[in-house]
Parts: sequence; structure tokens; C-alpha cells
Amino acid sequence: MTENHRHRVVIIGAGFGGLNAARALRKAPVDVTVINATNHHIFEPLIYQVAAGVLSPGEVAVPIREALRHQKNTEVLVGWATDIDAEGRTVTAAGPDGTRYQVPYDTLVLAAGATQSYFGHDGYGQWAPSLKTMDDALEIRARIFGAFEEAELATDPRQVQRLLTFVIVGAGPTGVEMAGQIAEIAHRTLPGRYRRIDPRTARVVLIDAVDRVLPTFDARLSQHVLEKLRKIGVEVRLGEKVVDLDETGVKVESAQGTERIEALTKIWAAGVAGTTLARRLAASVGAETDRAGRILVGPDLTVPGHPEIFVLGEAMSLRDLPGVAQVAMQGGTYAGRTVARRLTGRSTTKPFSYFDKGNMAAVSRFYAIADLGPVRLTGLIGWLGWLAVHLFYLPRMRNRVTVLLRWAVSFLGRGRSEAVITSQQVLARDALRHAPEAQREVAAPTTESSSSLS
Amino acid sequence: MTENHRHRVVIIGAGFGGLNAARALRKAPVDVTVINATNHHIFEPLIYQVAAGVLSPGEVAVPIREALRHQKNTEVLVGWATDIDAEGRTVTAAGPDGTRYQVPYDTLVLAAGATQSYFGHDGYGQWAPSLKTMDDALEIRARIFGAFEEAELATDPRQVQRLLTFVIVGAGPTGVEMAGQIAEIAHRTLPGRYRRIDPRTARVVLIDAVDRVLPTFDARLSQHVLEKLRKIGVEVRLGEKVVDLDETGVKVESAQGTERIEALTKIWAAGVAGTTLARRLAASVGAETDRAGRILVGPDLTVPGHPEIFVLGEAMSLRDLPGVAQVAMQGGTYAGRTVARRLTGRSTTKPFSYFDKGNMAAVSRFYAIADLGPVRLTGLIGWLGWLAVHLFYLPRMRNRVTVLLRWAVSFLGRGRSEAVITSQQVLARDALRHAPEAQREVAAPTTESSSSLS
Repeated sequence: MTENHRHRVVIIGAGFGGLNAARALRKAPVDVTVINATNHHIFEPLIYQVAAGVLSPGEVAVPIREALRHQKNTEVLVGWATDIDAEGRTVTAAGPDGTRYQVPYDTLVLAAGATQSYFGHDGYGQWAPSLKTMDDALEIRARIFGAFEEAELATDPRQVQRLLTFVIVGAGPTGVEMAGQIAEIAHRTLPGRYRRIDPRTARVVLIDAVDRVLPTFDARLSQHVLEKLRKIGVEVRLGEKVVDLDETGVKVESAQGTERIEALTKIWAAGVAGTTLARRLAASVGAETDRAGRILVGPDLTVPGHPEIFVLGEAMSLRDLPGVAQVAMQGGTYAGRTVARRLTGRSTTKPFSYFDKGNMAAVSRFYAIADLGPVRLTGLIGWLGWLAVHLFYLPRMRNRVTVLLRWAVSFLGRGRSEAVITSQQVLARDALRHAPEAQREVAAPTTESSSSLS
Repeated sequence: MTENHRHRVVIIGAGFGGLNAARALRKAPVDVTVINATNHHIFEPLIYQVAAGVLSPGEVAVPIREALRHQKNTEVLVGWATDIDAEGRTVTAAGPDGTRYQVPYDTLVLAAGATQSYFGHDGYGQWAPSLKTMDDALEIRARIFGAFEEAELATDPRQVQRLLTFVIVGAGPTGVEMAGQIAEIAHRTLPGRYRRIDPRTARVVLIDAVDRVLPTFDARLSQHVLEKLRKIGVEVRLGEKVVDLDETGVKVESAQGTERIEALTKIWAAGVAGTTLARRLAASVGAETDRAGRILVGPDLTVPGHPEIFVLGEAMSLRDLPGVAQVAMQGGTYAGRTVARRLTGRSTTKPFSYFDKGNMAAVSRFYAIADLGPVRLTGLIGWLGWLAVHLFYLPRMRNRVTVLLRWAVSFLGRGRSEAVITSQQVLARDALRHAPEAQREVAAPTTESSSSLS
């Protein structure tokens, strides 16, 4: 087998799924190309702590080429994948400067995740960012800390109240964790630092149409978390649906009627949708998608009729598996091993089976829950478990040390190590105000020049 | 003396000068208002390490209100000061949302620093950012690491070379330190991570019209540094003047003629200029400015004829004092103490005298120079001195711990802890390309609504 004919695996996306697929191919006789829109892999379970000013971007993200540097058969290309030609087996992507390039594949692994769903109201996005990318996290951080700064300057009491009201839509893990963080910022970090406002008067509102928080967890744990959230000052509104959202507030609808909440800072943590890329691929190969736009895959995670195309994590739909990190990680490893196994001529492949290690969510300092099937932990015990698990899975040893120190600062003390607001966030926000439809596509191509990398 | 008649000190700028002035007024019977364009104080001597991916923003910057939280007579307002009415003793500023507000003063301390001077070619700014603000540092970081990413994708060898050429204009401490960092990134951090390019082929060019590097240091130290820079692979071009600069390169002029260097990444570290605000103030009170636009002050750091207006640091011009951190710090303390002393009825004030503790610059790992008057250190000894001094002056104990760890990662290892490129930098760069004149004024007012805070 000559160098020219090595089997080529192209992996789109370097989240948990893509990175694990690449790692599983470390020793396989293949050439691997990882294409990702940014230069970094994000440890998603902790990205909310960047938004909350606890951790720095470098503590929850690692350059992809650093993570894969010892893997000589693997290259990393920064690019926004825009098209997949399933017939010609070629991926088209746009580099950071907008130049398009093509990469041919023998096996394709689509691990590009999902985007936030605003349930048909994409215009909400500019007023209520979601928390998917590092940019989202920095943007939300600037909005939270910036709201207190603007409140200190505001002279109209109604404007002060509007600035000090934080609405989080969606009471899944991200929504619950963000609500807990904002409550801690208002009640523990910021008091004593302002002269005109009292940060403790801030109102943190968590809204969900479902009748409980953390609906994928055990019901008793949900009840515990609900009580804890209320205790730390979060106003939890369940069974209420957001029916409108604009620059200055949201309108919610419940059995009692509709109500408008005036709030300048909103965070959207409800619902995911398949990416444009996944939709295009599905259309071109005639694959089915579920209601959220995720591609229905077979038991080996490939697209029916296309054994050379794997779909992972939040991009795939299989047996109601949730869009969590573990499904993506295990799917990535499975896909990588399957590709390697096929090349050895072994034809039978066991179907993908998911081993659920359990779920965790940290509500506030010293309080987390862990739903480990038969074992359920709450409070301090749950929190210590959460701490240990997250430190263990965090990439890079040095991050574990600094993260632990940051946590000591935030949990034992009252500080936030990373509360810097840069002007670029303000600039970006202004840019988005004038072009909201561009929001999710900032890395999309801007020029039409083209080149072929093969 | 009633609360209404407390003497009011307004400090514009929370750099070393402004922060030290505020601190010196801690126990004085005055009300202090600090107005700053961002929410944070920057420890400027280390901001280049943010640009180089070594440190996080939160490690070299601290929220101003955190730094001053125990000072009950002091409030902090985020705003871009746009005008000073010396007659009516009022400062006008624009808040983050663009709303203008006025703050009256009895004593004014102008400590707003300086901006980068492009010697009449402000259009250079978009292609060669300077390193003054946190946004600048993140922008430069994204350009440096982004250039290697784009080079990995480029197919034209000339474009690869252009992407891998880094030009730094100005061989003062910032220029020397940035050149050293980029050389280390190319030679130590990135090798082994790319498959198509060799980062070690990167060209790092340091240009200055003067005939030696670090011209404010002892001449023998300059010579040492020059040799060290060449040893680590920096191409130092002295006695050469940049006569043109555009998107893809610079043109330099020397005794030998002119030459064009193709380079996509440029950093400007030459020359400072007074701010628009300082010019306006000087014009309205009839004060003189020096050639760089800095306000000439009397021996007590006040504007002639206006004993109630102090000017500090890079905004002031006095006896050729350099625009370094120490002058600003000592000036701030002097101004604060002078204000406090006046209120006790003591009329005589000793003129400001500057005690020069010496200068330091770190060229690469294990190599720094320290010019401490009679004592001059180079190499490892100089570097250990540099390390100790910077750790000592760094704000917040927790930063000292994490910074030390980051340095261990970079100096003992090869890593860079903070090499994340976000899309907002790309977005901001695109915005600047289309509106270069807006570059230095991103925090400037956008609306005309107005309120009075008093």
C-alpha cells in the first residue's frame, strides 16, 4: 500500500465525538484530517464557568493540535465545513480568511454538534445568546458583569431594575448552572463593590415550559435542586413558556395568563437543532432527520446506505440517546475503532452500545447532584463527586492545578478570577444588532476563492 | 462639613497613575470618583504575555472595583471621558451603552494615559495593532496563532511565507519582548503540531529607526540584548525606518535604500501620542503640550494656572520623565497626597521628585536584563530578578500563584496555556477593516442621550 493510497478519514468537528474518533485511529493505517471551525477543543461541561468569570478560556479549551500533536497520522485544519459531496466523497470548508478548500475522504465522521434552537425565532438570538462556543461564553460574561456596571450608571429606577434582572430560558443543566452562578455573583461576589446599587437586589429568573428542573434526572433530585435554587435566590418559574422576547424583556405564558418580565440580560438554554451542514448532508443522501434536524443513523452510527459516513453526538439521532458528552465520546471511540477494524478485513461489527455513567449538575458552591442510576448524591457529597469527576476529565494536568485554585477562590472565597470585559464583546454585540442573521455564522466564508488540499 | 460639601476628586483613568492616586486618598475627607473606559486595571508590564498566549486576561487585569472595594469614599464608573469643562469643573463621559453623563469635580486627576502614535499614518493601525488595551492583546494573540493556522491551509508558497513573517516595529521593551515571544512560539511551542508547514521557518523581524535596541537602557545592555535576540532567531534591523505599511507588508528605508518585507502580521510598538481628551483639555485651558501631545505640567504635576487639575503618567510632560509605570505610580501617589494635604490647610507642597528604581526587560526564557543604575544584570540572574519583581508587583495573591504555574509551563516546558482564538477577534478585525478610523474609539459614545450623575 503506497502513501498515496492510505485510507483517508475526515472528521468534521473536534468536540468530544470528533476528538475521541481521532484518538481511536491513532495506530490505524489511515490518514486522519480533523476540520474544526476554531483552533480549540472545548471541555463543554465547564464552559458555563467561563461565562461566569470563574475560569479562563485556556482552562476549559485546548488547541486541537496540541491535543493531537503526538498522532503523526493526523492533521488539523481550521475551517468551517460548508458542504459534503457524498457522491464525490469530498468535504468543502472555508478557512479563517474565507478561502474555500476541499478535502477528499474515504470515510467521513460528522461530529459537528448542533446549534441552539430558538424554535423558529432566530431573531431572539441577538438578545438571548446561547452557550455553545467560547465566543458565546465571553459574550455572556460581558453581558452579566456589564449589566451591573450599566446599572451603577443608570438614573431611571426602572432601567436599574431592568439591568438587574437576569432571565435564563431552559432549566436543563446549563440553565440551572448559569442561574446558580448569576445568583452567586449577585449575592457573594459583587456586594460591597458598588456605591449606587445593591447587587443583592438583582433578580435571577429561570423559566421552563416543563414542570420541573433538570427533567432528565431522577424526579427526587429535581425536587432537591428546585428547593436549593429557591434558597439561593433564584426565581424558578416552571410550566411557563416564553412566547416573545426582545431587547428589553420576555413575555411568558402560563396557565394563569401572560406576563412580561423586563430584563436586559437573557440567556437561552432551551433546545438544540441540527446544523445546516447536517441538513444538507441528509438531503443529498436521502437520510431521515428527526424533528430537531438530527440525522437518523443505524446501529453502527452510519447513515443508512452509506457505511462510509458516521454521524456522532448531537448531530445524530439514535434510540432517543441524549445529546450529552458521554454519548459523543463513546460514539467517537466506537466510530474510530470500527474504521480501524474494517481495514483489517474483519467485517462484523458489534452495534454501538451506550454505557450511561450517570449525570451531574452543580447548582452552587458545595451543592451538586449526581444521578448515577442506583446511586444518587446531593449536596456536599454530590459536589465533591462533581469536583472529582470534572477535574479528572479536564484536559491537561496544568489546567487541573489552576482550575482547582480558581475554584478555591470562588468557592472558599468570594472572588471571580476572570471578570474582564473587553470592548470587542461590545463591538461584536453592536455588529450583531445590525446583522442578527449573521450571528451563528461568524466563521462562515466571505470570499469565493478556492483551493484543493489533498 | 456636610455630606453635600465634601471635596470631590474625579480621577480619569485607572492605570497605575489613577489607581495610586485613588489609593492615596483612601483616608482623606474627600469623595473620589474613578472613571475608566473599561471595568479593569491592567498590569501593563505583563500584557504582552496575554498577546503571546502565556497568561489569561484575568491574570494581568483586575476589576477596578475589586481593587478599590474597601475604600468606602471611592466609587468607580465605567465610561469613556469625552470632555472636560475646566470652567464649570465638570467631566463628561459616555457609559458602555453610549449614554453620556456628567460628573462635577473640585479636583481633577487626568490619568488617561496615551494612545499609540503612528506618526501621522493612523491607517496603519488596522494592519499593525499596538499593544495598549486588553482588546489589543487578544487581537494580537489571534493574529499570531491565526497566522500559523492560515499558513497550514495556504497552497501558494509566497502566501505561506507572508503568513509566517512577523514584523514588529519599534525596539523598545514592548517590541523586544514581543519579538522574543514570537520567536519562542515558532521555535519551541509549535514545532511538531503542523503537518504541512514547519513553524521554525517563521521569520521574526524587529525594526527600529534608532541604531540600537532598548535605547533607554545602558548601551552595553542593549548590545547584550541585540546578541541574544539574534541568537534566538530574531532578525533585528536597526537604523531602518518604516516608510509604508499595508495589509501584506511593510516598506523600510535605510542608508542602503528601500526594501519591502512581505508580512501579514505586524505589531506596532513605536511612539505614543497624547489622547484626544488631553488635547481638548490643553486647548480649553491654554496649556502647552509637547511634540507628542502630552500636557506640560508644573513641578507639582498641575496644569499652570489650574492647581485643581493634575496630569499624570503618559498624559503629562515634565523634565523628560519617561512614560513608564513607575513615573505614573509615583505621580499618582504624589497627586493623591497633595490633595489630602491641601485639605488640612497645609499650603506648601514639595515638588514631585521621581525616584528611578531602574528598568527591566525580559527577552526570552531565562534571559532578562535589569538596568538598576550602578547595578546591571543580564541573563539568568537578570531573569530571576525580573521574575521576582513582576511577581511582587502583580495584583492579587492568587494571580501570583497561577502566573507562576503558567510560567513554569512556558519556560520549563514548551506550552502556552492561553492560545484560544475566538471568532470575535476575526469579527472585530473585519469590522476594523471596514472602518479603520473607529479603531481607537470602540468605547466612544454612540447615542446622544444625557444624564447627570452628581
